[in-house]
Amino acid sequence: MAHQASTLSSLTNPKSIAIVGASTDPQKLGSTILSNVIDSGFEGDVYPINLKGGTIQGLQVYKNIKEVPGDIDTACIVIPRKFVESVIDDCIEKDVKSVVIISAGFSEVDEKGAKLEKQIATKCKQNDINLLGPNCLGILSPDANLNLSFAASHPQKGNIAFLSQSGAFCTAMLDLSLEQNLGFFNFVSVGNKVDIDENKLINYWNENSDIKVVGAYLEEINKGIQFISNAHKLDKPLIVLKSGKSEEAKEAIASHTGSMAGSSQAVTSAFAKAGVIEVNQIKEMFDTMVGFSWAPLPQGPNVGIVTNAGGPGIITTDTIIEHGLKMANLSDKTQKSLTEVLPQAASVDNPIDVIGDAKADRYENGIKALIQEDNVDSIVVVLTPQLITQIEETAKNIMQLSKTTDKPIFAVLLGKHYVQSGLRILHDFEVPAFSDIKNAISTLSKMYTFYKYQKKAPQLPNIQNYQVDGKYEDEMRKFLKQTQNSNKAAQPIPETLTNKITNEFALPLPAQAITVNYDELLTFAHDNFPVALKATTEDLAHKTDKQAVFLDLKDEEEFKRAYNQIEEVLRNAGVSEPKFLVQEFITDYQPLFIGSNRDGDPNIYKSQSGFGHLMALGYGGIYTEIFNDIEFTLLPNTREQIKETLSKTKVWEIMKGARGKETLAIQEAIDIIMKIQKMLLTYPQIKSVDFNPILVTTEKAVAVDIKIFVG
Amino acid sequence: MAHQASTLSSLTNPKSIAIVGASTDPQKLGSTILSNVIDSGFEGDVYPINLKGGTIQGLQVYKNIKEVPGDIDTACIVIPRKFVESVIDDCIEKDVKSVVIISAGFSEVDEKGAKLEKQIATKCKQNDINLLGPNCLGILSPDANLNLSFAASHPQKGNIAFLSQSGAFCTAMLDLSLEQNLGFFNFVSVGNKVDIDENKLINYWNENSDIKVVGAYLEEINKGIQFISNAHKLDKPLIVLKSGKSEEAKEAIASHTGSMAGSSQAVTSAFAKAGVIEVNQIKEMFDTMVGFSWAPLPQGPNVGIVTNAGGPGIITTDTIIEHGLKMANLSDKTQKSLTEVLPQAASVDNPIDVIGDAKADRYENGIKALIQEDNVDSIVVVLTPQLITQIEETAKNIMQLSKTTDKPIFAVLLGKHYVQSGLRILHDFEVPAFSDIKNAISTLSKMYTFYKYQKKAPQLPNIQNYQVDGKYEDEMRKFLKQTQNSNKAAQPIPETLTNKITNEFALPLPAQAITVNYDELLTFAHDNFPVALKATTEDLAHKTDKQAVFLDLKDEEEFKRAYNQIEEVLRNAGVSEPKFLVQEFITDYQPLFIGSNRDGDPNIYKSQSGFGHLMALGYGGIYTEIFNDIEFTLLPNTREQIKETLSKTKVWEIMKGARGKETLAIQEAIDIIMKIQKMLLTYPQIKSVDFNPILVTTEKAVAVDIKIFVG
Repeated sequence: MAHQASTLSSLTNPKSIAIVGASTDPQKLGSTILSNVIDSGFEGDVYPINLKGGTIQGLQVYKNIKEVPGDIDTACIVIPRKFVESVIDDCIEKDVKSVVIISAGFSEVDEKGAKLEKQIATKCKQNDINLLGPNCLGILSPDANLNLSFAASHPQKGNIAFLSQSGAFCTAMLDLSLEQNLGFFNFVSVGNKVDIDENKLINYWNENSDIKVVGAYLEEINKGIQFISNAHKLDKPLIVLKSGKSEEAKEAIASHTGSMAGSSQAVTSAFAKAGVIEVNQIKEMFDTMVGFSWAPLPQGPNVGIVTNAGGPGIITTDTIIEHGLKMANLSDKTQKSLTEVLPQAASVDNPIDVIGDAKADRYENGIKALIQEDNVDSIVVVLTPQLITQIEETAKNIMQLSKTTDKPIFAVLLGKHYVQSGLRILHDFEVPAFSDIKNAISTLSKMYTFYKYQKKAPQLPNIQNYQVDGKYEDEMRKFLKQTQNSNKAAQPIPETLTNKITNEFALPLPAQAITVNYDELLTFAHDNFPVALKATTEDLAHKTDKQAVFLDLKDEEEFKRAYNQIEEVLRNAGVSEPKFLVQEFITDYQPLFIGSNRDGDPNIYKSQSGFGHLMALGYGGIYTEIFNDIEFTLLPNTREQIKETLSKTKVWEIMKGARGKETLAIQEAIDIIMKIQKMLLTYPQIKSVDFNPILVTTEKAVAVDIKIFVG
Repeated sequence: MAHQASTLSSLTNPKSIAIVGASTDPQKLGSTILSNVIDSGFEGDVYPINLKGGTIQGLQVYKNIKEVPGDIDTACIVIPRKFVESVIDDCIEKDVKSVVIISAGFSEVDEKGAKLEKQIATKCKQNDINLLGPNCLGILSPDANLNLSFAASHPQKGNIAFLSQSGAFCTAMLDLSLEQNLGFFNFVSVGNKVDIDENKLINYWNENSDIKVVGAYLEEINKGIQFISNAHKLDKPLIVLKSGKSEEAKEAIASHTGSMAGSSQAVTSAFAKAGVIEVNQIKEMFDTMVGFSWAPLPQGPNVGIVTNAGGPGIITTDTIIEHGLKMANLSDKTQKSLTEVLPQAASVDNPIDVIGDAKADRYENGIKALIQEDNVDSIVVVLTPQLITQIEETAKNIMQLSKTTDKPIFAVLLGKHYVQSGLRILHDFEVPAFSDIKNAISTLSKMYTFYKYQKKAPQLPNIQNYQVDGKYEDEMRKFLKQTQNSNKAAQPIPETLTNKITNEFALPLPAQAITVNYDELLTFAHDNFPVALKATTEDLAHKTDKQAVFLDLKDEEEFKRAYNQIEEVLRNAGVSEPKFLVQEFITDYQPLFIGSNRDGDPNIYKSQSGFGHLMALGYGGIYTEIFNDIEFTLLPNTREQIKETLSKTKVWEIMKGARGKETLAIQEAIDIIMKIQKMLLTYPQIKSVDFNPILVTTEKAVAVDIKIFVG
């Protein structure tokens, strides 16, 4: 892995390139790609390959990659699929380090293509060749003056590394970036991602300190558990648009790429765990990359506003609060200093309103005051184009002042036509500037969320620390195999196995005793009132319709009466030497729900094919669905992390002892959750579990209804 | 009212205009406004007024409005505030019909300005003069070729009527509209809105069939109840951005306009009742107006997509589902017809993917199929700029096809630079075209919501039908006055008054009896087991610490034991002939919460100063705050509307009888809510009520804890 990752530089920063399928016909991709390589100013060697030979765009054409005199770092293949495999053979012979297969017609099309793709992937892997694609747009490395793709745009150099599973998404993003001069370090279209995928690229980019931001458009995530680990390790913001969250979109993905989109809740939980910044729209992704690329992180939630209009200042305030940020309180000192430089009608409190006839100097004064104010962590400058507004001068002031501070300064220039020149100036000097308030504040909010995540540096617990050697692994596997062989969906494990596993992980159950001895029963009852009493004879129901179960027995008198009645029933039914079950009867409890579903295959913690077990915690009992008070977390979690998840639920508020009620047994509830976690990580064959309810009292937490499914 | 409303045409479509403060100095607003009137092509008479006389821009200047030879429909005043009142006197003398006061310095500045504003408003009202402003940008009536404002832009003619409480918001909106050729019928900056406000304009615009859409930016709403009624009556979409929802923003509004922003929940409920389309951002407002202005309403939720790229198709699908719309199912016939015209690699299911090498003809085929498909209610065309994409031809096709169908067709052209020409074509021909998926889908979703609202035509119940003559109105008023005189916040009314009102509206309480007679007690108990029994002697607690209350008595045996014990306690405490209270003891119930807060003053249903009583319904009991299962509705509501509100809560699911449980007494619960509604509408002095819990059993609903506050 480490070897491969380091050699990705042969792809992102090659010294020599061969283009297999280079063409003189401008309608063909092979022509476009060659032009792009030349136009982007690539300084290494470029070898067009085409059976026809001759010259293209002044370069000598070779008929075969093997004829090329020098070494080849990267070969770009843009020929029909049936010829691709033999070119790969040539690449192996020529010791090419990286291959980009632009050609389509592989696993995204049919079975035959899928088979071919697999063969090619295997060959590349065996020969340590990095493979990008197939079915991709190519790669752009502005840092290496290289556009090895058929994208029409050459983006600026910059500090963003970007990957996309959709070529069209690349195109749209590049087109947006042209307008705002947003620069990229690498820009990679991963196509069917049979080798180079999000995992390899994230690891590779993590080692490059010139890269400040990583962005990714993904339709499905390869090796979920690995992804979480890589994303967590990444020392920079990772912004991801994961499409296919709705069931309807998953169908569309299936017909589009043949891949599975995965559980959207698992994805959301994975992102939360790894500190991934989730976005949902193309423009949102672009704006978020702009913010992270161009501005420092806000080190706190407090925003200061300077505006030349009250209305938009109010909308900005609403938007700040809506996004979980705060309005900065300006100190008396700051307000006083503003009074001295602003007209009387101005507002010197936050939002600072420099009013409609403000020229650039008033904005400058307002921004300077916010830079100096300790209570301000970030600054938003709102401008509406009024009669004497100095749009360009104000933009220049913002740009100059941005250089003097570690606080992010975001500009919002409202309108369109009149403010264009101001936006242009700000974008040219890499100051985040927006034409909509929400886009600015939403970006700022994501940056602050990332700042908090980084500062807290949450740990990613090691799965091994939460696993044991399962005593009943053979039994589990056997049952799994039966289920799979019978082509059944996930099946509940037999009660005996449930009991064994419950025992193995010491899951607490209500206290109980089974005996034929009345004195023993009574002693137990005395220790546990109220209790339930029943006959253990299972087939009693067939013999009589008389009552043989009594609940909520409060004292010896009630207990004795119940015992006598059952005894009589049993005697009449012909049961001699009856065994009784006495159990504590828990009345005053809070029901808690613990559930889990597995994302990935039954060998998940080795295969890493998905995200593993997703745990759901919340209000239990018969109204679990109605309350829908559920929080999710992917395993494994430390005890502290389980508590953190649980503390987001409403049932947590109740367990803490709201409204004068006693605190419930929170530690004991967390104990159970930790035990269930261990059970799941030990037995990855478990497809789902349902513990509902867990009864949580002031003293303990016990499970009363356990369902374990294997599949 | 009717008279005034009709004469607003003297403002929106005047035959003659005087500009008081017209100036030769281009730095002055009086000069800008005169230029705007001339440049906008106004064909009526224009009279510049200035003490200096002479000519300005070729027009003769009059020293005083009274010197003008002809009639004056509208006088626009743009001089320092101290001179404004005498000009109003002149206007009265001259019989001017409408006045626009551009000048600032009134209630938004200080007490003196507020007083002056009031005097001017009174004079105008007494003389039937429409007054726009003060402190506003003016009015633009593209339909009348009139820009009577100091806004720099002349927008196109169109079918949108727009009003704004912020001049800067106007400026930003006009600048946006220039870029997209969005046209307006009227565009009004209402400033301090002392006379012409949202209520008058909405009524006026309702009568004009050339107006298709009404938009408003508001910081506070004048006369809330009237607003609801007017907005409800309006036969066109009303799109409102109401800023100042956060507490923080309310502070900013207070310092900005001196007005109160009101409860944001009341505003949201008012909008829901009146079918107002709520937006939160400037661009969102603009896009929403574009959709309603240019496209027909979708008559169903089913969206069909045509795209040239899988990834953006998936993002669009996710966004459609997220916004509550649906993906249309395409019939076999449609899919088959598409197979015939699209290449094999295309997807003929929704989203229709015409793939990356699609030219305009494939888009045309895809859109035509969706137009013909009965299951499709609206069409979204997604385009990414790929190598051979025909952007302009495709735009022209979309434009042509839009003319052939009653289904809305929205275009989303992703990217920026390359797609500009396509957007330009679509905007020029008034086809909604967006550069972001979310903006398109969010607009479509709002249009469908409005379609459903219009189709359902929900009634607005008449307050009078839900009021009675309160028996205790004098007592209520007296108590209110006491509270107000003592400068106290809202106060709970005395228990005796609570009992009287509870009785007046027949609010059901738990059944109970008070008597000295054991047999009567026992008879009651038999009818109501389980019961609670207690001594009514109030000062018993001082005489003994023995138990004199017993709960949950299940049968005669338990009842008798309790009676004897209390009797003994009483006897020992020296109480002779003790009175007992026996009450049904309700154990198996669902707690329901009913609360209300009043928006507006204690005379609200006459003053209409606010929105009236906002009712909150939801899960009751001690965890009301934790569950936060609350739905709101403004009074009055029909029984059906109360049910509709309640049915959005989770407690409703429980009351309906979830999970095999019996259905609870829903009708009886609604009865109580209707009674409480009547009580609130009868006694507007009530500032808030708190009925928590209402116990709802399978048979009835009773109130056990009633709190009524007046203030």
